[in-house]
Amino acid sequence: MEDLSIAVVGATGAVGQEFINIIETRYPKANNLRLLASERSAGKTISVNGKELKVETTTESSFDGIDIAFISVSSEISQKFAPIAVSAGAVVIDDGSAFRMESTVPLVVPEVNGSDVDWHQGIISIPNCSTTPLVMVAHPLRQLSPLIRIVADTYQSVSGAGASAMTELTKQTKSLLASEAFESESLPSQIGFNVFPHIDSFLDTGYTREEQKMIDESRKILHSDNLPVSATCVRVPVYISHCVAAHIEFEHPVSVSDAREALSSMPGVTVMDNPQTLSYPTPAHAAGKDDVLVGRIRQDASNSNGLVLWIVSDNLRKGAALNSIQIAEELVNRDRLN
Amino acid sequence: MEDLSIAVVGATGAVGQEFINIIETRYPKANNLRLLASERSAGKTISVNGKELKVETTTESSFDGIDIAFISVSSEISQKFAPIAVSAGAVVIDDGSAFRMESTVPLVVPEVNGSDVDWHQGIISIPNCSTTPLVMVAHPLRQLSPLIRIVADTYQSVSGAGASAMTELTKQTKSLLASEAFESESLPSQIGFNVFPHIDSFLDTGYTREEQKMIDESRKILHSDNLPVSATCVRVPVYISHCVAAHIEFEHPVSVSDAREALSSMPGVTVMDNPQTLSYPTPAHAAGKDDVLVGRIRQDASNSNGLVLWIVSDNLRKGAALNSIQIAEELVNRDRLN
Repeated sequence: MEDLSIAVVGATGAVGQEFINIIETRYPKANNLRLLASERSAGKTISVNGKELKVETTTESSFDGIDIAFISVSSEISQKFAPIAVSAGAVVIDDGSAFRMESTVPLVVPEVNGSDVDWHQGIISIPNCSTTPLVMVAHPLRQLSPLIRIVADTYQSVSGAGASAMTELTKQTKSLLASEAFESESLPSQIGFNVFPHIDSFLDTGYTREEQKMIDESRKILHSDNLPVSATCVRVPVYISHCVAAHIEFEHPVSVSDAREALSSMPGVTVMDNPQTLSYPTPAHAAGKDDVLVGRIRQDASNSNGLVLWIVSDNLRKGAALNSIQIAEELVNRDRLN
Repeated sequence: MEDLSIAVVGATGAVGQEFINIIETRYPKANNLRLLASERSAGKTISVNGKELKVETTTESSFDGIDIAFISVSSEISQKFAPIAVSAGAVVIDDGSAFRMESTVPLVVPEVNGSDVDWHQGIISIPNCSTTPLVMVAHPLRQLSPLIRIVADTYQSVSGAGASAMTELTKQTKSLLASEAFESESLPSQIGFNVFPHIDSFLDTGYTREEQKMIDESRKILHSDNLPVSATCVRVPVYISHCVAAHIEFEHPVSVSDAREALSSMPGVTVMDNPQTLSYPTPAHAAGKDDVLVGRIRQDASNSNGLVLWIVSDNLRKGAALNSIQIAEELVNRDRLN
């Protein structure tokens, strides 16, 4: 990994910055990074492993000599630059929704379906930041019994909507504490001391695109095209980490102890589940951590073949930047770079 | 109602104060109130319909001449004073969990099971503040098709844990904004810019008592002893109003338009549901309102006989004080005062 040339498109965004943080921790000698962003951010310098790197404007020639291009920007920008990067010989790992459901694009969570990188044709997508923790938990459990249905309600932090939404939460909170007027900016509803069930745009079905992503992407990653999934996706006034209250139904009953054991053995998952010591995960526990945390594991009182779980994950790390780096590692290990 | 003598036990608490607010709006001439609280709060004065009333310490003789005693305090204090109030000839309307599941105590949401006040023996309980909005929505829908299962995940504000938890949210938020250290006080986990799945204590099943209340109380109010219900109850950094993401399954398919019509006709429910105009309820919409708000009504993508809904309600009003006053009105209308 440390010998590769990596382009980071969206280097000054919330996910881009976390990508650089993780590179520094995992690869302290890596400095062959090209930091790319919009014209607005070009010229800034960012320190990577002790070397000051200048942020450049993304252009058609930005990808010459690049092995892996990590892209975390809007779908429009992804759609413009991903094909250019592929033509230049790079493998693109894309954080957006632009390519996820295309049949030629693997959608990968390495611990769940790492071998799907084998059939990439230049672009690999990473899932939405609330889908990833859900499949990280569903995958080991389905080894115990086939999945019948997943119902998931989310509690999603503002960093999922980017750095500007984090600033908006701070501003609104201060205004509300001071009883001052405020206006919503990048977020569609009041976020200070409020929650709202509206992430991404609405579909004709009444679901939001964010909810539909959880449905479609879970099926694609789990190779289970007809798995019944439903979700309500809700924004909460938290900076980092998404939570999911998941109700998972199986073909046969699955005991809590078997579930706990399967989850404890899953790489990238930490079980934090002891009601007697009041141990359960929250966003404050997960922020800055690599692992998906899971707790509140119990038999579903409304279904003898069901389990209820509470899943928490740093949306910028496993939900985005870390998962991308793990895909890059998978490409190296499987010798699937171009 | 304006001729009755009403005792308010817990008059200085979050619910007690909302009780007085609603009395002033609905009964601007009522001033025959006895305001009761712990010794710590005794001596304070509270203005009710223009008359300054002194808060007294609750004692064994506090209920002489009282027609209705509204109690919103801890279960221990309820258990001590409710029987005393009944002996003194009052009907007790209790906001706590002390008596709710007793077979001799009606558990009442007037729009759903108002006639249950008929069989009271002195004490009537009001449901937990997250159960009430759920049954207010489930009741009109079950007129369309029998209920098969309810899965509910909540987003509950801190006022459900009392006035001290509201202060704690403010204090912690200010500390976090200033990057200062803080400690949790009345709440069991960090609430500033955080959420946690822990309301009331844990049961051996892994469910919390709050979640079990939603299960048991929904069944009792709906007269449906074996209805499968499951819930995850989560505290969020919001001052007032609880939200519920509800997945309701029916014996037969129920269309979204039929559901919307049934909910629109339900007294005490307001449908706020237009994705095209980005209309859906949030805690900021519900706080201070009497009605339960419902939106995001859609077919459940994981179950052809299911609907998914988003329910928001002021937990201090319909979740507590307003529901109590409506029970008192029901007692008067049905001539069931002692």
